Amino acid sequence: MQNSTLSHFNAAGEAHMVDVGAKAVTQRSAVCEGYITMLPATLALIIAGNHKKGDVLGVARLAGIMASKKAADLVPLCHPLPLTHVDIQLLPQSELQRVYCQTTVKTTGQTGVEIEALLATQISLLTIYDMCKAVDRGMVIAAVRLLEKSGGQSGHWQLTQST
Amino acid sequence: MQNSTLSHFNAAGEAHMVDVGAKAVTQRSAVCEGYITMLPATLALIIAGNHKKGDVLGVARLAGIMASKKAADLVPLCHPLPLTHVDIQLLPQSELQRVYCQTTVKTTGQTGVEIEALLATQISLLTIYDMCKAVDRGMVIAAVRLLEKSGGQSGHWQLTQST
Amino acid sequence: MQNSTLSHFNAAGEAHMVDVGAKAVTQRSAVCEGYITMLPATLALIIAGNHKKGDVLGVARLAGIMASKKAADLVPLCHPLPLTHVDIQLLPQSELQRVYCQTTVKTTGQTGVEIEALLATQISLLTIYDMCKAVDRGMVIAAVRLLEKSGGQSGHWQLTQST
Amino acid sequence: MQNSTLSHFNAAGEAHMVDVGAKAVTQRSAVCEGYITMLPATLALIIAGNHKKGDVLGVARLAGIMASKKAADLVPLCHPLPLTHVDIQLLPQSELQRVYCQTTVKTTGQTGVEIEALLATQISLLTIYDMCKAVDRGMVIAAVRLLEKSGGQSGHWQLTQST
Amino acid sequence: MQNSTLSHFNAAGEAHMVDVGAKAVTQRSAVCEGYITMLPATLALIIAGNHKKGDVLGVARLAGIMASKKAADLVPLCHPLPLTHVDIQLLPQSELQRVYCQTTVKTTGQTGVEIEALLATQISLLTIYDMCKAVDRGMVIAAVRLLEKSGGQSGHWQLTQST
Amino acid sequence: MQNSTLSHFNAAGEAHMVDVGAKAVTQRSAVCEGYITMLPATLALIIAGNHKKGDVLGVARLAGIMASKKAADLVPLCHPLPLTHVDIQLLPQSELQRVYCQTTVKTTGQTGVEIEALLATQISLLTIYDMCKAVDRGMVIAAVRLLEKSGGQSGHWQLTQST
Repeated sequence: MQNSTLSHFNAAGEAHMVDVGAKAVTQRSAVCEGYITMLPATLALIIAGNHKKGDVLGVARLAGIMASKKAADLVPLCHPLPLTHVDIQLLPQSELQRVYCQTTVKTTGQTGVEIEALLATQISLLTIYDMCKAVDRGMVIAAVRLLEKSGGQSGHWQLTQST
Repeated sequence: MQNSTLSHFNAAGEAHMVDVGAKAVTQRSAVCEGYITMLPATLALIIAGNHKKGDVLGVARLAGIMASKKAADLVPLCHPLPLTHVDIQLLPQSELQRVYCQTTVKTTGQTGVEIEALLATQISLLTIYDMCKAVDRGMVIAAVRLLEKSGGQSGHWQLTQST
Repeated sequence: MQNSTLSHFNAAGEAHMVDVGAKAVTQRSAVCEGYITMLPATLALIIAGNHKKGDVLGVARLAGIMASKKAADLVPLCHPLPLTHVDIQLLPQSELQRVYCQTTVKTTGQTGVEIEALLATQISLLTIYDMCKAVDRGMVIAAVRLLEKSGGQSGHWQLTQST
Repeated sequence: MQNSTLSHFNAAGEAHMVDVGAKAVTQRSAVCEGYITMLPATLALIIAGNHKKGDVLGVARLAGIMASKKAADLVPLCHPLPLTHVDIQLLPQSELQRVYCQTTVKTTGQTGVEIEALLATQISLLTIYDMCKAVDRGMVIAAVRLLEKSGGQSGHWQLTQST
Repeated sequence: MQNSTLSHFNAAGEAHMVDVGAKAVTQRSAVCEGYITMLPATLALIIAGNHKKGDVLGVARLAGIMASKKAADLVPLCHPLPLTHVDIQLLPQSELQRVYCQTTVKTTGQTGVEIEALLATQISLLTIYDMCKAVDRGMVIAAVRLLEKSGGQSGHWQLTQST
Repeated sequence: MQNSTLSHFNAAGEAHMVDVGAKAVTQRSAVCEGYITMLPATLALIIAGNHKKGDVLGVARLAGIMASKKAADLVPLCHPLPLTHVDIQLLPQSELQRVYCQTTVKTTGQTGVEIEALLATQISLLTIYDMCKAVDRGMVIAAVRLLEKSGGQSGHWQLTQST
């Protein structure tokens, strides 16, 4: 554990947007992952559409990219910052009955982009849920987490354990 | 499975916002759940703050409520609709090393509010991640899913299996 | 005083969006006022522009109207609802060294529009501040309050005392 | 008075977003204040909730922080810019029958953050109104103004007279 | 011509959001069209991508659908209203060196959806511009207009002349 | 033609937000134009209002300026970036039965502002449509295009042919 208190509260315990004015403007990136599990028949519909028509994954990818730009709107103490790159991979995994999502976000700024990458992952997966919910309400959005980050004073970080 | 094709695409396989103009305006509700796992020390900080100062769960609850109003902004084919009620429960579960979230959303409208409830759950959990990430980057947002819905032509639905 | 507790918290003291699903859809309106005080020379510039060029009040009026549509985005527990009418009067009052603002908002819905009308008033006055701040940083936005509301179960309400 | 004309209009008297491209990127800050007056019983409810449950001020603080990020959305000619710090103090003052708000906003940019700080103050106070309006419709949002600013070519400014 | 004055201004000539509170809630629809002209090689790239990879039209369609939900955010005096259906057709027309767009929007409400349909058309075409601008900066977005509307007190309207 | 493939897709043909992290931060500008054609009587109403009351063009100008700040919200793969200047000229041209619009946008950033300038032009013209549609549904928004851009690695570009 790096800190023993939560920086998003001031000395009085009140929420504030942390002062990052003294931090260096550096290149920062974050990579996140997550997946959505579903019935085999639902996944088959997605895979069919991806090749032919009804491109669920194309819509979900767009939704995730657009959501990455809304992190500061949605997460109360998140700093607004411009993004320089967003890329979302959506991979149907039939043997696991799921669609896997991996998102990379980059910026040149004073804070990191982990929240932007996690949010993009969440919204891509939620969009898959939305488009398939009429045929499968029991889908589960699972294991959304940070894989790796770089840049900033806390430097490089990588997830050590895997599921 | 209710349908064999995905209603969010027209006959040409192109994405569209489904026509709900002929649907009845009824009371609809959705209940969702999810959780975020973390290190025991992180959870201890949240629990301490909840009672004394540094109210992580209060901030996360607000973020989720506000996010529920943004579903149509974020999910491309989601219909915009007014909400009549949003309630979010956030429960620290020390034995499971996680915070559990359960969200209820209601509307009086022509479509359901599953997406609104799932989104609120996702953003509440993401806000917890944001506020605690300086001390624990390995937190995982997990098992976000629908528990129950009512109202509309598809009627009542309840999750039958549990984790 | 109508209630002895605050309805925006549930029994556990947690913030929620109050359930208005059982409320009747009725015509509702709210009228608010407020003003911004300034140096005589600043007010003279506004009055001159209003007649000839540099229409500060026209810009401020538009800003207020647009802001009225954002109430649910900005005020966490405010219900989203469509508006049927917004009108903003901005009146320079030289003798009082101020611009007076009066806003009327109407809806057909399940909750009132006081917040929408107060917000529109605030943003109209803030826009005046923005446009004139280069010449007068000491302007004060004052006395923003509800004058009258109608519709809904709490019925008609009117401010009894005046400043 | 610094200027004799309003910079938000071009030579033809038409509104435009002022060209700040030649301004230096510097650290800038603004401190604003304001308050909301209310019935003693309303203030007592807020004070009770702040200590025990029903945290009106916690919700209002969050709303203000989030609003500071929306200034360019709401104020037509306001430049969009990232913020590096936002802090909002909300202080119940029983003897004055009001809640006092003081907001500090900082950025590293080409324009100042007075509007962001004023807006955050307005929305924090409006959120208090929203949460307490069922028990007290006569609350008044008053005296929202700039206390101090620093950074940029106009340099340091401080309010000289006090109420 | 139906009216001799512009309803978006009150008797004093000030902009307001027109009062539609007395209008009936009816089913309303609007159909709009427009196109973007480009170099033959640019159109060839779009057509190739549409069939194989790099689905410009899929992205543009999504952008238009999402934009239709933002009309009241962008057009100052436009009433916010829920939409029940949005469909966008994008048709490459090689002989005319353009992509043609036709948009249908429906609602159940108190005002029409012409603005929503025009906006969706504009943003779909703008998104095509964005995605192809690196290869063709001279594209032109042209002839965006209403083809037909129905519902409401002004009833059915259809464009009589064609280009 | 500068490129032979579309940069908004990765090697797999999937949409992504192009990585601009290695691009220089430079002063960039874009100038766009467009117009809206209408009945002579409609244009006469606009011209009358512009001079006396009912300032359609003032409202449209504001709408365009505000829209320029929303480009990244509306155009999926557009990078968010701060703007340093926006100016919109709206010119009634009686002999051509139209209102002509020319927009200039500037930034200091890593990508250009063509989309911001085109969007501002589109929304200014759409706002004119909105305000006049009750008297003239057949208005056409036409010939929205880039006139000139400067800054960035692609350097200066100017439209060579004119309609």
